[in-house]
Amino acid sequence: MTLTVVGSVAFDNIRTPSASRENILGGSATFAAFAASFFSPVQMVGVVGGDWLPEHTELLKGRGIDTEGIEVVKEGKTFRWTGKYLDNMNDRETIDTQLNVLSDFKPKLPKSYRQTKYLFLGNGTPSSGLETLDQIDGADLVVADTMDLWINIARVDLEQLMRRIDGLVLNDSEAKLLTGETNTITAGRRILDYGLTFVVVKKGEHGAVFLSRDEIYAIPAFPTENVIDPTGAGDSFAGGMFGYIASQNGKITPETIKNGLVYGTLIASFCVEGFSVEQFQKIDRNAIEERRKKFKQIASF
Amino acid sequence: MTLTVVGSVAFDNIRTPSASRENILGGSATFAAFAASFFSPVQMVGVVGGDWLPEHTELLKGRGIDTEGIEVVKEGKTFRWTGKYLDNMNDRETIDTQLNVLSDFKPKLPKSYRQTKYLFLGNGTPSSGLETLDQIDGADLVVADTMDLWINIARVDLEQLMRRIDGLVLNDSEAKLLTGETNTITAGRRILDYGLTFVVVKKGEHGAVFLSRDEIYAIPAFPTENVIDPTGAGDSFAGGMFGYIASQNGKITPETIKNGLVYGTLIASFCVEGFSVEQFQKIDRNAIEERRKKFKQIASF
Repeated sequence: MTLTVVGSVAFDNIRTPSASRENILGGSATFAAFAASFFSPVQMVGVVGGDWLPEHTELLKGRGIDTEGIEVVKEGKTFRWTGKYLDNMNDRETIDTQLNVLSDFKPKLPKSYRQTKYLFLGNGTPSSGLETLDQIDGADLVVADTMDLWINIARVDLEQLMRRIDGLVLNDSEAKLLTGETNTITAGRRILDYGLTFVVVKKGEHGAVFLSRDEIYAIPAFPTENVIDPTGAGDSFAGGMFGYIASQNGKITPETIKNGLVYGTLIASFCVEGFSVEQFQKIDRNAIEERRKKFKQIASF
Repeated sequence: MTLTVVGSVAFDNIRTPSASRENILGGSATFAAFAASFFSPVQMVGVVGGDWLPEHTELLKGRGIDTEGIEVVKEGKTFRWTGKYLDNMNDRETIDTQLNVLSDFKPKLPKSYRQTKYLFLGNGTPSSGLETLDQIDGADLVVADTMDLWINIARVDLEQLMRRIDGLVLNDSEAKLLTGETNTITAGRRILDYGLTFVVVKKGEHGAVFLSRDEIYAIPAFPTENVIDPTGAGDSFAGGMFGYIASQNGKITPETIKNGLVYGTLIASFCVEGFSVEQFQKIDRNAIEERRKKFKQIASF
């Protein structure tokens, strides 16, 4: 079943200790849509500027992604983010952010998207999430990703959003920030109190935890030494997880959740092995299944 | 089969954000021996002072631990450590350390211990580890725990120790310190180059990773909210893991390693739910197997 992905589309400038790239495709919707496309048909909603080229659309279409929801503002420029990773490849500094067309972004869902059953709101303002929800005729499963920025400056909107969605995805530090709790599990449980059915706490190189009122699942990260660029790993994790769950008709069972966590983890492990979405152009579902076998040997008992 | 555990015995003063305790039993050998005792017969080697009371010996004997190797220096005092945990219950500050009888500790193995097949050197000076090795007639499996202090001030001894043992256990930050690497997996692999068959990297609330030249296994921590006192969790993890592996005749197979990681993880999760070894007095192997079932639901796929 089709997953609709809403979020940012960006051109990133990335510096790591060993390499750097300019003007590479990024953004929360981009990574999530690419990741989900290995499991489900994907519809993508975002905004880009006049600097968006046909080759970028082709890149998305190459993975079967429906790009009708990508709005092109000809007179504007696409959102740009410049970031630098520290030696540990986990911590990063934002060098520059140019919101450009993203600053006035109001997601517009094409008519054909409005009956969507599965919606993933990639990281973006909570208000853009709320505007998206106003355009759909109900959905079976709505999940949003969020970040520290919105917890700090748009908390009221975020709380309103949490009451209208099923699940929230965020980092462990963000879960602690949102709740004031210091234990990751306690923080996750407290977030459920905002009216959510479940929360997924991302821990980067340490894996991820799924929490609902009665369940908890924890998966380590796929151990990888070949970290080229971590940008988009979290978006890819979530896109992969909910792309997989959409492919299982949105069923939230222990089996689909754990498989979703596993596929999200695997997709994220491919993501970090290259800049931008370049690894996603090199792999197919078979490569993912091969890595799944390895991961089962490594982490299942 | 019997596991011989060598290491420190301590009286700890512990302060956490919500409680504090004075003069409670601690030390690397204590926690490791208690943890291992759920899986294997245990022989314990350490040193204590005139402040060691018959009730402490009884506490160990209550879990079937052979205490013949605990040397009592009547005119001395037992090693004392005072520590304070920060709000996150992971970071801690050492307030005071009084080495006392531990400062001159030269482990003396009773004759009956010298044929031991399985030896765990709990955290202590690398030179005391080397002295222990000089007293045994070869063993099938020797594993040592170490820490940042010895990496910083006793590196030559530690390197010599690593050449004479099979496996090393240490924290992820310590693995990075020892190798200068920033990726945990790369750091683990580099440590193998010191002449080890395997290394176990402990990541606290994020679980643990086992690495050998051809294998890697990763297990998340058992998710627990009820963290009363994390002291001894790492020692308990290692004691539980190698107590289990000793019970399987020291066989280092994928099956025993993964089970060892799991049992170490479970024992550590009990350890942190109380001060000192108090939780170990409340549980039995059945309680561990119950938690294992839960853990399988949570983390196996």
